[in-house]
Amino acid sequence: MTAAETPESSLPPPHEALKSPARAWFEALRDRICAAFEAIEDAQHGPLADRPAGRFERTPWSRPTADGAPGGGGVMSVMRGRVFEKVGVNVSTVWGEFSPDFRAQIPGAAEDPRFWASGISLVAHMQSPRVPAAHFNTRMLVTTKGWFGGGGDLTPMDLATPASQADAARFHAGLQAACDRHDPAYYPKFKEWCDRYFFLPHRNEPRGAGGIFYDHHFTSDAEADFAFTRDVGTAFLDTYAPLIRARMAEPWTAAEREHQLIRRGRYVEFNLIHDRGTLFGLKTGGNVEAILMSLPPEVRWP
Amino acid sequence: MTAAETPESSLPPPHEALKSPARAWFEALRDRICAAFEAIEDAQHGPLADRPAGRFERTPWSRPTADGAPGGGGVMSVMRGRVFEKVGVNVSTVWGEFSPDFRAQIPGAAEDPRFWASGISLVAHMQSPRVPAAHFNTRMLVTTKGWFGGGGDLTPMDLATPASQADAARFHAGLQAACDRHDPAYYPKFKEWCDRYFFLPHRNEPRGAGGIFYDHHFTSDAEADFAFTRDVGTAFLDTYAPLIRARMAEPWTAAEREHQLIRRGRYVEFNLIHDRGTLFGLKTGGNVEAILMSLPPEVRWP
Repeated sequence: MTAAETPESSLPPPHEALKSPARAWFEALRDRICAAFEAIEDAQHGPLADRPAGRFERTPWSRPTADGAPGGGGVMSVMRGRVFEKVGVNVSTVWGEFSPDFRAQIPGAAEDPRFWASGISLVAHMQSPRVPAAHFNTRMLVTTKGWFGGGGDLTPMDLATPASQADAARFHAGLQAACDRHDPAYYPKFKEWCDRYFFLPHRNEPRGAGGIFYDHHFTSDAEADFAFTRDVGTAFLDTYAPLIRARMAEPWTAAEREHQLIRRGRYVEFNLIHDRGTLFGLKTGGNVEAILMSLPPEVRWP
Repeated sequence: MTAAETPESSLPPPHEALKSPARAWFEALRDRICAAFEAIEDAQHGPLADRPAGRFERTPWSRPTADGAPGGGGVMSVMRGRVFEKVGVNVSTVWGEFSPDFRAQIPGAAEDPRFWASGISLVAHMQSPRVPAAHFNTRMLVTTKGWFGGGGDLTPMDLATPASQADAARFHAGLQAACDRHDPAYYPKFKEWCDRYFFLPHRNEPRGAGGIFYDHHFTSDAEADFAFTRDVGTAFLDTYAPLIRARMAEPWTAAEREHQLIRRGRYVEFNLIHDRGTLFGLKTGGNVEAILMSLPPEVRWP
């Protein structure tokens, strides 16, 4: 059979050729984010400025496999600083086979269980209750199909204040601009997906102020999808970093801090009860420390 | 058809006659536990004795139903004190119909979805890292079948210390004595069930030092099962209360407190990821405040 005669479904997806560039992008973005966040630590002259500026610590990890064969791994980067109480930026590139339980749930895995995945994920919990927490991740998956997914969302501690609403509007505007450069249909669709996903049904409340969320994204132009995913990453950094700088010098009250610690409880409830990524990772033997790095450093359920 | 001709499966279970006594027992036990814990608060002359002794606050709640019909409810009793950082004791008596999703999972509910349930549940998080946290609950369920369930388990903050091991041995001895009075097979069986249940697979570690756990318990003598369940409740109180008193005057270090806050994170992970009671309650529209009262007042994931 020549290549021209190969049935379409058995051709490797175009994402095959993007494995190396995607991994390189996620790692380069990690470096840019870490540098930007360390510069924010250096720039703090407001609360806690008497503490030393934080620095990221990197910890590489390997994905264990049943037969000891290489399965990839990743690098956790964690900073505990004076602006960022705890921020984790993970990159990972892993490969292997989906267990029979998961094959039916993953596009293209029923035909062949092998997968390759590379991505970046970030969760930032801030010292200041005036500075919103944030979550961001993007990834590329390759099975017999290939796709991108990810998004970013903002969690101000008090959704009702004018300051939080201004921050949320600014964050959404930054992500919308990135979306609109690719397809005007993206932002409304991915914003609504985010609102639906980051919701706590048992509390009947949203986790935060939303953002965008997309998954199984494949438009028939993998290069364009990759460019979109890069733009989401850049837009996240270029929107969130100035938002931190604009708020980080503001003093806060003990009552605001207490409220922040309680709101962080909602974040924990969402991640451990509902977040598919967290539960998928824990059930498939992912790196527990990397997965649970998203949990806040200090929480209260009074 | 006379009663003698009624097929056995359509006879009401003997637990029908125990509804009122079971509810009364759970509420009386709640009163005894609250009084014993308030007496412990009064007796504190060690750490934090400069704070006022804690007192339980009771909050009744009603179970909402789709059609507004009565569905029962409960009373949350919460104390935030100087020995007990946060202790919740819930009693509830609820009735209604299981949704189609749950009928297949519940004994006797496939035939008729109506249920009645009454029980008590308790979680104690202590100020002192030297005093173990504890969980206890017992309940009676009635569908077309009837059964008891429950148990108690202890969570010392550091399982490796001789003090924790002595506390665990004492706690187990108290529960074993109660079990042995009913059937020598109970303790080994229910201890093993507890070890299996209170385990965090993603950490590959037990939640604590164990205790006993039993469910769907029906020996053909409902009165005897009820007597066993009462003895479990009494044994829990009579074992845990002296154990608190024996440790509560000990001073602790900041490092022990920090370790306690981190260990509490494991407690949260278990309750939100694995605990069937918690997830069942949240998914069936239970009282969120009552269900999540089990979460610790202060937690760290550093």
